[in-house]
Amino acid sequence: MIGRLNHIAIVVPDLVAAADIYKASLGAVVSEVNVLPEHGVRLIFVELPNCKIELLHPIDNTSPVFSFLEKNPSGGMHHLCYEVEDLYASMKRLKMDGARVLGDGRPKIGAHGKPVVFLHPKDFLGTLIELEQV
Amino acid sequence: MIGRLNHIAIVVPDLVAAADIYKASLGAVVSEVNVLPEHGVRLIFVELPNCKIELLHPIDNTSPVFSFLEKNPSGGMHHLCYEVEDLYASMKRLKMDGARVLGDGRPKIGAHGKPVVFLHPKDFLGTLIELEQV
Repeated sequence: MIGRLNHIAIVVPDLVAAADIYKASLGAVVSEVNVLPEHGVRLIFVELPNCKIELLHPIDNTSPVFSFLEKNPSGGMHHLCYEVEDLYASMKRLKMDGARVLGDGRPKIGAHGKPVVFLHPKDFLGTLIELEQV
Repeated sequence: MIGRLNHIAIVVPDLVAAADIYKASLGAVVSEVNVLPEHGVRLIFVELPNCKIELLHPIDNTSPVFSFLEKNPSGGMHHLCYEVEDLYASMKRLKMDGARVLGDGRPKIGAHGKPVVFLHPKDFLGTLIELEQV
């Protein structure tokens, strides 16, 4: 069912400083700052040859990553995003296995303009998983 | 400097149950159990089209992932591994930037038989980073 790893999301305390670590110290290609008000984050993409790292910072205290940053003030890995071909079929199979889809259980449009859902970390080895339809 | 993401390591409380989540629920291809006494872990590879997930479980309480599992009993993301072409040149550049290499600072032979070092998570946004020479 799952295909490629699309990205790893890392929540960071300072977006520009974080991008500088990836650009200057680790020598990676980084994007400009993207502001995604509908997701409550500002975001910088780190482009690797085979996948992306997404550096996320909350827009305000209603952001879905605000409390994570409070608990992890130095930053930390927040979620993994796997690509799937058929999000509805994937959700059906996962629900049959007892896995919990977060929120109201319906796909939303993600940061790349494609339908996504998030799966409960307690059902997946302490890892928050995003599934993105491609 | 950094190239491909080689793998994401996830420490898990039960290796066979973890592999079953990736195989049965998420439909991924998983390996048999590999025992790596020199690294203090038992390990299962999840093979994705563009990278690997490594599911790790400590062999005993001297394992480098033992305390992580104590702090995260449901499991959790432990480190990211990026590939580099020249590990010594990468280390030199990182040390000039003030980044700390863990242990005695010298490369060791990693789980894939190639030289690796680990970088201090406090210097990299709360993320433990492994660099592997390819």
